[in-house]
Amino acid sequence: MRDHYVGAMRGVALGICPDVTLADITHDIAPQDILGGALELAAAYKYFPQGTVFLGVVDPGVGSERRGLAAEAAGYRFVAPDNGLLTMVFKESAPRQVVELANQQYARPTISRTFEGRDRFAPAAAWLAKGLELCVLGTPLTTWEMLDVPEPRVTAGQLSGLVLRVDRFGNLVTNIDRQSFDAFAAGKAIEIEVTSRLIARVVDTYAGVESGSVCALFGSSDHLEIAIAGGSAADRLGLARGAPVLVRLKADPNGPFAPC
Amino acid sequence: MRDHYVGAMRGVALGICPDVTLADITHDIAPQDILGGALELAAAYKYFPQGTVFLGVVDPGVGSERRGLAAEAAGYRFVAPDNGLLTMVFKESAPRQVVELANQQYARPTISRTFEGRDRFAPAAAWLAKGLELCVLGTPLTTWEMLDVPEPRVTAGQLSGLVLRVDRFGNLVTNIDRQSFDAFAAGKAIEIEVTSRLIARVVDTYAGVESGSVCALFGSSDHLEIAIAGGSAADRLGLARGAPVLVRLKADPNGPFAPC
Amino acid sequence: MRDHYVGAMRGVALGICPDVTLADITHDIAPQDILGGALELAAAYKYFPQGTVFLGVVDPGVGSERRGLAAEAAGYRFVAPDNGLLTMVFKESAPRQVVELANQQYARPTISRTFEGRDRFAPAAAWLAKGLELCVLGTPLTTWEMLDVPEPRVTAGQLSGLVLRVDRFGNLVTNIDRQSFDAFAAGKAIEIEVTSRLIARVVDTYAGVESGSVCALFGSSDHLEIAIAGGSAADRLGLARGAPVLVRLKADPNGPFAPC
Repeated sequence: MRDHYVGAMRGVALGICPDVTLADITHDIAPQDILGGALELAAAYKYFPQGTVFLGVVDPGVGSERRGLAAEAAGYRFVAPDNGLLTMVFKESAPRQVVELANQQYARPTISRTFEGRDRFAPAAAWLAKGLELCVLGTPLTTWEMLDVPEPRVTAGQLSGLVLRVDRFGNLVTNIDRQSFDAFAAGKAIEIEVTSRLIARVVDTYAGVESGSVCALFGSSDHLEIAIAGGSAADRLGLARGAPVLVRLKADPNGPFAPC
Repeated sequence: MRDHYVGAMRGVALGICPDVTLADITHDIAPQDILGGALELAAAYKYFPQGTVFLGVVDPGVGSERRGLAAEAAGYRFVAPDNGLLTMVFKESAPRQVVELANQQYARPTISRTFEGRDRFAPAAAWLAKGLELCVLGTPLTTWEMLDVPEPRVTAGQLSGLVLRVDRFGNLVTNIDRQSFDAFAAGKAIEIEVTSRLIARVVDTYAGVESGSVCALFGSSDHLEIAIAGGSAADRLGLARGAPVLVRLKADPNGPFAPC
Repeated sequence: MRDHYVGAMRGVALGICPDVTLADITHDIAPQDILGGALELAAAYKYFPQGTVFLGVVDPGVGSERRGLAAEAAGYRFVAPDNGLLTMVFKESAPRQVVELANQQYARPTISRTFEGRDRFAPAAAWLAKGLELCVLGTPLTTWEMLDVPEPRVTAGQLSGLVLRVDRFGNLVTNIDRQSFDAFAAGKAIEIEVTSRLIARVVDTYAGVESGSVCALFGSSDHLEIAIAGGSAADRLGLARGAPVLVRLKADPNGPFAPC
């Protein structure tokens, strides 16, 4: 929102659907960071009422031949460039319908080669909000771009993951979901290694931890995160997206091969 | 709004009260800065229509046993954690009613231990906006957390205050309200000392001051502020919250003990 | 939006016109940067529905005798201080009507000398949104402030322009509009010089350019911009507003005076 770009998109949407309720998720995805946009969108959409239309534009390929999409998944509708921005949404719920935004009738008459958000995506989203059927926007697709999002893997007795998101509070949110964690740990004692630091256990909440100490917990999107109560884990540990996070079974201190 | 968090709260609110008008005050309070949130909220709420519901979440104690509150004060309603975020509102107007958010029926079914804003506070605020009576949200309270906000004091012939807020323009807003100032100065000539710099008088407006010079004036919330016309006083003077600001009676240049 | 200021203005507007649809353009214009505000406003307004009321407050002269304006131009209405903030709007479309905000009945009862946005401009805009006739707000004006915005000039066989806006992506948007460019180039081969770097041609879109290389193109507001596909031209070239951009006819490589 530093520029007029988002404002122009709001104007276009209100021109098509004056009664629309506009609700922002974020405008602060780093330029070109499709994965970042995909993660924030997927973390937010499920909290909105069914039928909500989501407009996502992180679009480094603007002006190229990459397609525009409208899709229905999980009872919601999405408009976005076909560049993987809907990857996490589609992983959670296979889309019921995906169309290419081919019908020029629902775009602005002239489409800028540098700002399809204003001229193609915002109009399509507004038409959906106004009640247009998805299929009218264009031609059905059966394939679309998906990002290659790293999954947690079990190898050599370890569950290996990595940091996917760093939030405003400096929490390091990993790609290790609760299901993968539980399947690996199965109630046994574990320890977590991040940047050669060991975290002894997973707590329920920051509130259970001394202020300033590093902890691990399952955050609000049910993924393992590394945090510092009352501080920024990202700043303190100097970590960013991609940093490895390992979960290991703890050696049984009473077992035959326990460390001395 | 860098993350999806605010978006998710909007979605929850719209799911409960689809007709609600959402109006943002700020999402840029520094993490853990309850006082900062308390000050901005108190500076804004009185300009909204009576009955407006305010949702405030600066919540370092999330996941702990700290309570959630809904309150009515000054004809407005407020939802916030019980951590002092409503201190300045309650100082201005004693609350008519305060309840603990104990009724799970008006929260989301599962409450994250790291994000009660989404699962407890946003639903409560949306139910109030939808018309629910405050008392239905939970059990009445007679005590709640209040921050210890420093008040201006008169000692040794000086009115001592400090910088409470630094705004986006770099204005240094103090805790010296007009009433305390007037009671102290009583129409006499004063001078103001800030970081060993003397300001000779209080002006009515930046416009009365040469561009670039430091001045003192009563700002839009009727507190004394130190400002630089056309520039940032915070940057120029290198000051932040907590910096002392002293108001002194000026020695009478015509009096018997006037400096030579 | 770091402070409560925008929130207070929203509250005032909603108190006067509860049904208003609020849509943000930007709150991130640098303090005192009237030209920056003028450019973003002019780039956005035309995408909104006819009749929309725009409220612009970049107001270094707050508290002085500078006037407040309400204006109608191009089928839209505008409220702003009389300091040139509407320059680009008025250059595109001469205003049909301009009035000074003189009628105190449509301001708040007490007008802060540091925050007329809240007490004078927001109320005026809300009254217009509610249906009030523009002329009721005050007295007709025939002159108003206009910024001296640099225009591209043709001299010594060159089209000389400069960078007017740097957007969030680091694109350098110049004051060279397509019409001036076409009149100069007239279909001939040109080259563009910026910070002693030569750009050989104008492309249609970033997508036609190797990632990381500097290019020139007409952006979404139809002005020449210098960009880097997938990166920030401002960061890479170290340029900001005011940097010169020259367009020259290319020497004909087959002509008699072509360079060896």
